[in-house]
Parts: sequence; structure tokens; C-alpha cells
Amino acid sequence: MAAPDPDLLALNAATVKERWGLGEIIAGCVRHRLRGIAPLREQVQQLGLKETARRCRDAGLAVTGLCRGGLFPALDGKARSAARDDNRRAVDEALELDAQCLIVVAGGLPRRPDGTVESKDLAGARAMVRDGLGELLDYARSGGMPLAIEPLHPMYAAERGCVNTMAQANDLCDELAGRNKGEGLGLAVDVYHVWWDPLLKQEIERAANASPSRLLAFQISDWLAPTAELRLNRGMMGDGVIDLPLLRSWMENAGYHGMHEIEILSANHWWKRDPDEVLLTCRHRHQSAC
Amino acid sequence: MAAPDPDLLALNAATVKERWGLGEIIAGCVRHRLRGIAPLREQVQQLGLKETARRCRDAGLAVTGLCRGGLFPALDGKARSAARDDNRRAVDEALELDAQCLIVVAGGLPRRPDGTVESKDLAGARAMVRDGLGELLDYARSGGMPLAIEPLHPMYAAERGCVNTMAQANDLCDELAGRNKGEGLGLAVDVYHVWWDPLLKQEIERAANASPSRLLAFQISDWLAPTAELRLNRGMMGDGVIDLPLLRSWMENAGYHGMHEIEILSANHWWKRDPDEVLLTCRHRHQSAC
Repeated sequence: MAAPDPDLLALNAATVKERWGLGEIIAGCVRHRLRGIAPLREQVQQLGLKETARRCRDAGLAVTGLCRGGLFPALDGKARSAARDDNRRAVDEALELDAQCLIVVAGGLPRRPDGTVESKDLAGARAMVRDGLGELLDYARSGGMPLAIEPLHPMYAAERGCVNTMAQANDLCDELAGRNKGEGLGLAVDVYHVWWDPLLKQEIERAANASPSRLLAFQISDWLAPTAELRLNRGMMGDGVIDLPLLRSWMENAGYHGMHEIEILSANHWWKRDPDEVLLTCRHRHQSAC
Repeated sequence: MAAPDPDLLALNAATVKERWGLGEIIAGCVRHRLRGIAPLREQVQQLGLKETARRCRDAGLAVTGLCRGGLFPALDGKARSAARDDNRRAVDEALELDAQCLIVVAGGLPRRPDGTVESKDLAGARAMVRDGLGELLDYARSGGMPLAIEPLHPMYAAERGCVNTMAQANDLCDELAGRNKGEGLGLAVDVYHVWWDPLLKQEIERAANASPSRLLAFQISDWLAPTAELRLNRGMMGDGVIDLPLLRSWMENAGYHGMHEIEILSANHWWKRDPDEVLLTCRHRHQSAC
């Protein structure tokens, strides 16, 4: 398979967030000829929303997505309405940044303020995601901001995201479409979360065959074998076991021609390295391993 | 929901393997009135096959399963035929122990002798599992030993088991049944591996509706939140986030009335405790949290 178009490389700003602020990250993207960026909301807040928008525009960077909205499940009505307000602000911020989508992470089981799980009702949590997402969609569509629901690896079901397969995410899109809420809703395909799924190819195709296509974002990294811990041990493309060219071919054959956003959460390795070296490695590996 | 029948409690011998040998574990099961045991092959080898069979019989313990056969994928023909021979020995051992089934763990991506992954072809690995399992089935059926394929959590796809959902395992059973190899093949449902699956209830029902039922084993533990690392951080029933009474009700409503086999792999907690205390806790939690 031919190497990917180098101009499709984009950076999820979490990849170098430990040593660079967002201003440095934007400048780094320019220096390394990355064409897109997906910032975290907390980074945007720190640099300032208008300032971030201006710098990305001046740098010619596409904002591939804003990370993130979501985290819908909560037993407490007050917490749910706080989440709703915060999610609407996330949509507003994404619009100001001219982002291609707002990345939505479902949230896991409802938790207490101290972080402990408050309910084991997983189906109930998933219903809260459906309802919260449906509500947010009304708001997002009125502004024209697509929401990209990101299925998370099943190992995050309890604490971070209870939408865990592409099929489930497609089903969720179908269900909301049935309520006249299909438009403006799609998927973010992160290889780290979905590479293992026996139905991955067919669910990518299913997402692509929706009208319009649901394939809103494509995020890349690698699954290390062994993986030391669950959260912050992602690998650089080529250092793990994911057949990245194959997965890219599935996306492209399904009609996805958007950017390839690198998202490597790596507390003990890449976050400790010089970010310029990280971005050089990303650029090289995008050509050699993706 | 009413507490489960205490006589259905069984012990996967991995739960206390760090401090007790198999002889002590069998005696411990008797002392704590556990009615079933699933030993590991290496434990059986250490105590001796005939001696293990005799002690289980004398203790009145059902052998709910022998752990384990499988690990089919290998690029090297020699390694594949060594695996085949070893799997046949596992069937013979299960027959000698009068086990209810041989637990089969698929294996992950093909690896080199040093353990590093040799191929990223996940679909290819899954085809090797299908072929290896089909071959083993011929052998196992001739002796009358059911094989219970155990879907493993997707976080083990690379290194341990590339059958990762109940749907995939049911599909595999269907496919082999289509080759006249359905009989004598079923599933081991381990809540730790499958609790997150949005299709769990329907796939349990699908397994139950096969003829004969594919529900051959039911293993219990809990998913801790947070989970510190991927392999050996399982929780005691009630200490995590799995709705165990709900999952048991799905199994029972689907017609499963076999044993509840506790399998807790917990390097930093339960493996360090006094095994008598562990078994007391298991018995208590089986009544209060399952």
C-alpha cells in the first residue's frame, strides 16, 4: 500500500501536552508541517478561545476536532444539567474555532463527586448517553457543529465511556436518526479503541453508507504488547500490533479522505521526550508505518 | 433477586494458587464446602493426574472445567503441531479428571519464541483459531469432552485471546457447526471478560438457544474501578462495578443452572492473603453480591 499523503497528518494536542502549552504546540505544528490540530478544551481555555482561533487560522491549521464534550451519565439532576451547560459551551467553542467536529466521549457509569461509581446500571448509563446526546444534538445542529461520538475501548466502559464498539455507536446514530436527529451526528474512529473489533471493517462501511457519511474523524496511535496500564500507555505508530495500513485502507475505501490525527497518551515515554523529537517521529512513522 | 444456591459455588484454582498447591486447594474446597473446582493444567501436572482425579472424586468435587487448551495461532508449522499435540493431551487430561469441559483460550497474534508479536494479521490469527479449534473438536468429540471457548476481554486480543465477544464466539460455533462440528462445542462465560458488551444478554440467549445449549461454564469475579493493570488486577465479587445479580439472572433465565466458578487473578491483593480467608470471603460474597 502506498504511504499516506503527508499533508493529511494532524496532531491531537494531548500528544505533547506535558511539555508544551498550546501556543508552542501550534508553532510546533507549523515547524513540522502538520496541517491540522485537535486541541483539548483545557488547553484552549488557557491560551484563550479567540487567541487560539486566531493562531490556528494564521498558521493555516485545520482544527480537526475539539476534545471534548460528553460525559453524560449522572444520577443527580444538578450534575446532569451542569454537564448539559458545559457541553453547550463546548459546542460554542468548537464553532468559534471553526472545528470540523466536537469529539464526544460518552462517559461511564454514574459517579459520586469523589469519583467512586454510584450505580452499576450500565444499560441505564447508556440510556443517559442517548438522551444527553440527543439533547446536545439539537443545540449543535442549530449552530451547524457536527458531533463525533467516539467509541472507547471496552476497558474504559466503567469510568470513561460506555459506548464501546462501532456497532453500538452506529446503532446510537440510527436510533437518534429515527427521532429526526441523525444529521450532524457521526463517529470518531480511533484505532486504539477499535482495532480489535471483529466487525470493524463492516461497521466502518456502515458508517460510511449513512447519508451523510458518519466518518468524521480518524485518530491514530498503536497498541503496545505488552501494555503496562490502561490509561496512558499508548504507542507510537509502528511500535505496536495494529495493522495501521489495513485500517487506513478500510477508511479510505469507505470514502474517508480526511486527516489522520495522531493521539498518543504516553505518560512514561512520549510525554517525557522533547516534543520536537516526538513530532519528527510522528511525521516519519506516518509515512513508514501507516 | 434471591441469593444464589450456595451449593453452586465452585473455585477456579488460580484464585489461591500463589500460596497453596492443588492438594491444599482441594482440601480447602472441602473445608469451605465448595462443591466444584477448575484446576490449571500445571497444577494437575504437579500433583499428578491420577492423584488429582482421585482426590477430587474422594472429596466429592465436580471438576467444572480444566484450564486450559487453545493458543492456536502460530506462523511456524512446528509450533502449530506442538500446540495440536499439547491440546490433545489437555483433552485426555480433562477426560481423566471427568471434567465438565476443557476451557479453550484462543491465543492472540502469532508470536516468536521470545514472545514478541510476529504478525499483525488479526483476521489471519482468527482463521487459525477456527481451524485449530475445528481440528481439536474432532479429537475431543471422539472422547466425549466438550470444549468451552472463552471469549476474552478485548484488551487481551493481541497477546492472549483474539476471540473477544460473545457474538464472535457464537459465530465461531455456528461456523464450525456448519462444518458438522457444532456438537461438543460451547462457551465459557466469564463476567470479567464480557460484562461491558452491549449484546451480552442477547448473545447469552443465542448461546442457550443452540441445541444443545452452548452455556458450558460461568465464571465470576469483579471489574475494579480503577483497574491498575491489565492482567492480574481482578476484584472480589462486590468490590467492583459489575452487576453480578443481573448477569446471573440472564444466565439462569437462559436455562443455565450449572456452577458459579470464582476466578480472581489478583497479584497484589487476594493472592497475598491467607487462602482460607479468601475462600471465606468468596463464600460470603457469593451470597451477598452475586
